Amino acid sequence: MKPQDAYTELKKRMRETALLGSTASILYWDQQAYLPKKAEDHRAEQLGQLSRLDHEWFTDTKVGDWLSAIEDSDLVADPESEVAVNVREWRRLYDREVKLPVEFVEEFAIAGSKGHGIWSEARKKSDFSIFAPHLEKLVELCRRKADLIGFRTERYDALLDEFEPRVKSAEIENVFAGLRKDLVALVAKIADAPRRPNIDVIHQPFDLDRQRIFAESVGAAFGFDHLAGRFDPAQHPSCNALGPHDMRILTRYYPNDLAEGLTAATHEVGHALYDLTQTDKTHWGTPMYETASLGIHESQSRMWENMVGRSRPFWVHFFPQMQRLFPEQLAEATVDDLYGAFNWVKPSLIRVEADEATYNLHIMLRFEIERAIIAGDIAIKDIPGEWNSRFKTYLGIDVERDADGCLQDIHWSDGSFGYFPTYALGNMYAAQYWAQAQKDLPGLADDHAAGNFDRLRGWLSEKIHRQGFKYDAADLCERVTGAKLSHQPLLDYLYAKYEEIYGITRA
Amino acid sequence: MKPQDAYTELKKRMRETALLGSTASILYWDQQAYLPKKAEDHRAEQLGQLSRLDHEWFTDTKVGDWLSAIEDSDLVADPESEVAVNVREWRRLYDREVKLPVEFVEEFAIAGSKGHGIWSEARKKSDFSIFAPHLEKLVELCRRKADLIGFRTERYDALLDEFEPRVKSAEIENVFAGLRKDLVALVAKIADAPRRPNIDVIHQPFDLDRQRIFAESVGAAFGFDHLAGRFDPAQHPSCNALGPHDMRILTRYYPNDLAEGLTAATHEVGHALYDLTQTDKTHWGTPMYETASLGIHESQSRMWENMVGRSRPFWVHFFPQMQRLFPEQLAEATVDDLYGAFNWVKPSLIRVEADEATYNLHIMLRFEIERAIIAGDIAIKDIPGEWNSRFKTYLGIDVERDADGCLQDIHWSDGSFGYFPTYALGNMYAAQYWAQAQKDLPGLADDHAAGNFDRLRGWLSEKIHRQGFKYDAADLCERVTGAKLSHQPLLDYLYAKYEEIYGITRA
Repeated sequence: MKPQDAYTELKKRMRETALLGSTASILYWDQQAYLPKKAEDHRAEQLGQLSRLDHEWFTDTKVGDWLSAIEDSDLVADPESEVAVNVREWRRLYDREVKLPVEFVEEFAIAGSKGHGIWSEARKKSDFSIFAPHLEKLVELCRRKADLIGFRTERYDALLDEFEPRVKSAEIENVFAGLRKDLVALVAKIADAPRRPNIDVIHQPFDLDRQRIFAESVGAAFGFDHLAGRFDPAQHPSCNALGPHDMRILTRYYPNDLAEGLTAATHEVGHALYDLTQTDKTHWGTPMYETASLGIHESQSRMWENMVGRSRPFWVHFFPQMQRLFPEQLAEATVDDLYGAFNWVKPSLIRVEADEATYNLHIMLRFEIERAIIAGDIAIKDIPGEWNSRFKTYLGIDVERDADGCLQDIHWSDGSFGYFPTYALGNMYAAQYWAQAQKDLPGLADDHAAGNFDRLRGWLSEKIHRQGFKYDAADLCERVTGAKLSHQPLLDYLYAKYEEIYGITRA
Repeated sequence: MKPQDAYTELKKRMRETALLGSTASILYWDQQAYLPKKAEDHRAEQLGQLSRLDHEWFTDTKVGDWLSAIEDSDLVADPESEVAVNVREWRRLYDREVKLPVEFVEEFAIAGSKGHGIWSEARKKSDFSIFAPHLEKLVELCRRKADLIGFRTERYDALLDEFEPRVKSAEIENVFAGLRKDLVALVAKIADAPRRPNIDVIHQPFDLDRQRIFAESVGAAFGFDHLAGRFDPAQHPSCNALGPHDMRILTRYYPNDLAEGLTAATHEVGHALYDLTQTDKTHWGTPMYETASLGIHESQSRMWENMVGRSRPFWVHFFPQMQRLFPEQLAEATVDDLYGAFNWVKPSLIRVEADEATYNLHIMLRFEIERAIIAGDIAIKDIPGEWNSRFKTYLGIDVERDADGCLQDIHWSDGSFGYFPTYALGNMYAAQYWAQAQKDLPGLADDHAAGNFDRLRGWLSEKIHRQGFKYDAADLCERVTGAKLSHQPLLDYLYAKYEEIYGITRA
């Protein structure tokens, strides 16, 4: 077969699998938002069927033949060309997937889907024993998956690779070690800070529907296209790509807290913008369209949530709108009150509600625990105890309910081990990109204070989103910022902000 | 292959297609309720892919071989056995489907899916010219479909067969002719009635959310299980079966009308109860679980909407609840005011808002027009004119906007020609079953006045829902009521009610 014909066939096949995958995404979105309790088993069967089909199509020996025909040809001479990039990544995924028997893939998908309902109930009742037997099964499946895929030094690497391609857990351990030391010092300084913002201003009764209206209008200002997506309510915030023009954000709002709902919404909008500003839709369904890693994707959500959404310029622009929506609650408040309250730093129980200083400590804890679970060094029954004792060490807090501890996150419920570290990597990438954006786009703070986010969105689109998977995460970082990933930009960013708000000094 | 093994394989295959079909239903439900505008093309591609797969699986020559192996065996000796019923209906569908090339099936599905958005826009702007080119294409596809499937006397029969198996349009024409004559006479009597109810009581401002709460609580009283389904808002009411325990009702409420939202909701609950009380879920995905025809399914929705939901006993029970929700609007109202207003009869423009007396005239008009379109006797461009002139003849009203005329219904937008007559058949079946239920269940009115709908629901479950497709619609009717379908029970029912409310006399 001619290489060009092989590529045509290959691309057609891959777009078919991507199309089917986007159908699975609708089922998964619905499961998080709307699925009735009694329909959970049927949903698991549906997802299992789609996983099986996807796997069969993707691992067809013809796919291997097409790949080989192209890999030996001039079509891949330029490593940055569409063909070379797509073939490189499809090969990686193909070699990974063919090692998994189809029965295993279906079993994993069904177990993962069923896990959502079981976890959800366990969390509601704060009863780990409800979740434990299913988690045991999921961990066993993950270990089998790692064994099937293969690994050099530890099983966890095989799982991590799904979310952060070509990154090893030892590397993450290293970069986390440096970050941890500096973050612990920062958190300690803030605990003894000469001044603190007033958190009470955002802890008043706030009408849920008006919170929603505000968050969705901020989304529109950032560039979220309400004709190519929508917001729905769910227990756990997320952004679901159901198609090239169909980004579904799930959020929730709290009646006595102005920050949690809004920051979750701006976070998910950041994810959505990744796809929405990936303007070359002809690449949809191929690596040229996709992100290099979840860490890179997360860098975008964190940037919009934190670097933009918790910035002073943001509140300069949005404070009057917020005040008009909540005239009684915010009658006496100022821009700096909101800016300060949204940057309240205090160790707390819930990851998704954590401030920027302590957030990464939540991640490190999860990374260590899940790595040890997969290694077999922590038994399922010991998870709550391990969680709680480490939490006390890292964040100085006693966990009293597992719902606020090891049951708080959705990830393990569908077998997503290896996902958590991408959050902390995302924070570091975000800060490094943000520092670069300040250099490349002079006057950006003035734009934001005027409610204009076009230049930043355009810069991100060009520098990151439209690059697709042309480069690995590490390479992309170097190309955009001229430097390897480091935790220093994150520290610089945090100190600049907290020196202003808390009156601390770095030296 | 042994017949028993063939049946095992066949059933497995058919359940796989049913599982995939339930995934397509989610996509279709989402399309009606939530799909963003720009995602319509992608959704069409997704549905096209699933249609193609379903068709490939269903028309596999192995399916034909399995069917043949069973048909020649003792397994089908008892025509009412599971095997005989399933094989009989799968054979009918198989023989139909194998005549359709897969490319045609996918093209039809994509055109049908795209039609929704185009129709929706045309309706919003009340501009038939927006919809006409796409409708032209859909009609052409329907005619091709009929030619591929084959027919004896007219193309329309091949389409009708999909919704009312083994029924011919000439039969429908006959039964409609008798009904039309009697309905026209009834409507004329009501126009000259000695007294009329007061419609103003339900045409006041009614909070949408409280209307929704009331309708959903009525659904729960009827037996709708909110753990196995949910209600969502949409432009067009519908009931979507996404799985054996997952009934999704779509409804809408109007700010100045108490009847439209509630009656649409009770109607869709009637459809949902069909599935929800089909208690033997092991049959899910096979004809033993399914309805004999859409007319039979519709009989259930009409019974709960009309025979129950517009009855005096219903309002005896629910009036106090309604009054508590709307104390200002209903301060002076009585049970009979609500009962009368919900049975207001007056020719009107919109089918789904029509009263019980005029409703079937809306259907007959559609049946005649769509039959003539498929026969080639009415050109696409002439549809609005034909619609409006016939509407004037049948209902005495001038249609001023196509949105209130030929653009009002969703059905043609996805190529569902042959669907409309099932509504009028449903009304007739409903009345005939209802008359039988009165005989079999003495004191039913007292149950309903006490808010207890269990006996009726149980009777319907046993007599109809749990019969699945054991019998054809016509046979089922005779078995349950001891008589062939007739329009007399509907007339009897309507006169009994309208004599009471309007003071008319039948003789």
